[in-house]
Amino acid sequence: MLAGTLAIVGVGMIGGSIALAARSRRVARRIVGYGPHTDALAQALQHGMLDSWQPSCDATLAEAEAIVICTPVEQIAARAVEAFAHAGPGALVTDVGSIKTAVLEDLRKQLPRGASFIGGHPLAGSDKSGPRFADVRLFENRLVVLTPDPWFAPEATDRASALWEALGARVTLMEASEHDITVGLTSHLPHLVAAALASALPDGLRPFAASGFRDTTRVAGGDADLWTGIFLNNRAALLQALAPFVAQVASFEQALRAGDRSALHDLLTQGKRNRDALGS
Amino acid sequence: MLAGTLAIVGVGMIGGSIALAARSRRVARRIVGYGPHTDALAQALQHGMLDSWQPSCDATLAEAEAIVICTPVEQIAARAVEAFAHAGPGALVTDVGSIKTAVLEDLRKQLPRGASFIGGHPLAGSDKSGPRFADVRLFENRLVVLTPDPWFAPEATDRASALWEALGARVTLMEASEHDITVGLTSHLPHLVAAALASALPDGLRPFAASGFRDTTRVAGGDADLWTGIFLNNRAALLQALAPFVAQVASFEQALRAGDRSALHDLLTQGKRNRDALGS
Repeated sequence: MLAGTLAIVGVGMIGGSIALAARSRRVARRIVGYGPHTDALAQALQHGMLDSWQPSCDATLAEAEAIVICTPVEQIAARAVEAFAHAGPGALVTDVGSIKTAVLEDLRKQLPRGASFIGGHPLAGSDKSGPRFADVRLFENRLVVLTPDPWFAPEATDRASALWEALGARVTLMEASEHDITVGLTSHLPHLVAAALASALPDGLRPFAASGFRDTTRVAGGDADLWTGIFLNNRAALLQALAPFVAQVASFEQALRAGDRSALHDLLTQGKRNRDALGS
Repeated sequence: MLAGTLAIVGVGMIGGSIALAARSRRVARRIVGYGPHTDALAQALQHGMLDSWQPSCDATLAEAEAIVICTPVEQIAARAVEAFAHAGPGALVTDVGSIKTAVLEDLRKQLPRGASFIGGHPLAGSDKSGPRFADVRLFENRLVVLTPDPWFAPEATDRASALWEALGARVTLMEASEHDITVGLTSHLPHLVAAALASALPDGLRPFAASGFRDTTRVAGGDADLWTGIFLNNRAALLQALAPFVAQVASFEQALRAGDRSALHDLLTQGKRNRDALGS
């Protein structure tokens, strides 16, 4: 047992998966949930995912040794400040947000130096939302990025690492800004591309969209509110990631217009080489 | 039994899947393969996928009632002409190529009016090549487009429809040009987008590419030679499909630069709506 009580603020797909993994791996004795979606929380309780729940952060948070904020990114800073207001003096607070710089800037203004906060981001997800899509194996052998910041307690990094490793994940440390640039390219750019491609499909052609179109657009099914927040809060990095993609599309366009077999073959070979290197 | 002997010219992933489905559904008494990859054909024979094979179209094709050309698109016309040269007078010749207009233009020049040819395209595939990736269920309930052409025998359409339905697929008829515009958008454009996105990933960021990036780029793993041929032979339609996608990406870029929450939300909502309409 790493924690007597593990608190999850925002019990959606990710928060629910943390609860399931913590339960299955005996990471905490008690798992408590906080959030405004009371029906989902009541169901999560009924299915044994949680031991209790509250509609918002309150005095019951004082029991928790570890508090994981799993809300949409634009609420993370406010919920973390709230959590610290109710938490016991030794509690670790961390999050799972897809962007880190903006949240840390906010929190440095609102939390005292040395507060036990560490930003985190598990590189695992789904285009589905809500605790009913929680997956006990979501983090197994997946990478979790932690972004230590000198304003906060260094021991928070070690405690969050131990928590994620206990949940089955591998941990890597990164500067917040480097993290945001990285996921701008590996996660936010694919989402933009998938959404643009899905939008380009006229309704009448839907029956002709087979597995290739479906795979390529799958992530566009993600929650639009959530992703608007992510895009807005990582604008600069996403724009930076977009440039080489747009240039590559332009190279394809040029090669197609010219009917240039060798250029097309090079472009397709480069794409295949990079994709093959990722494995399935 | 629809055919005593079914011939498959080009026994790769698609040709192999036709052989497996034909065997399992007792569509033909004998299944014979033709192609230059003799090791793969010998293996296909050993695994019971084929009853015999030849390195190229020859006099043994005279036995076949139905001949399906499953080579890369740029070889289809030549192989179909060869097949007719060896085939018996009542044989049906069809293909599975991803583009139809260019092949039909070629064949109208080389085959007599009334020849029993019909272009076909099963909307099912994989990013894997070779008969070892053949899948007996690949065509189950999948759509196959047939593209009747007035130059050729009308009864070829009925016979190819019956063949595909016996293999478990659903058949729809379309003009060749309409087919090419459709798949330019539903199949070739996603391939271009996936290849461009895969190419935009620097090697060092590979460990951070999670399921979103992997799904969105999956089709880029397809064979580069094969896809160069497809792109070149469907240039006009692919360029036509590319335009609305590029415009949509530009709208995202503009909304990001402006920090326009409502525009971003609209763009993401449109993508989600279109993707959700496809189902999983």
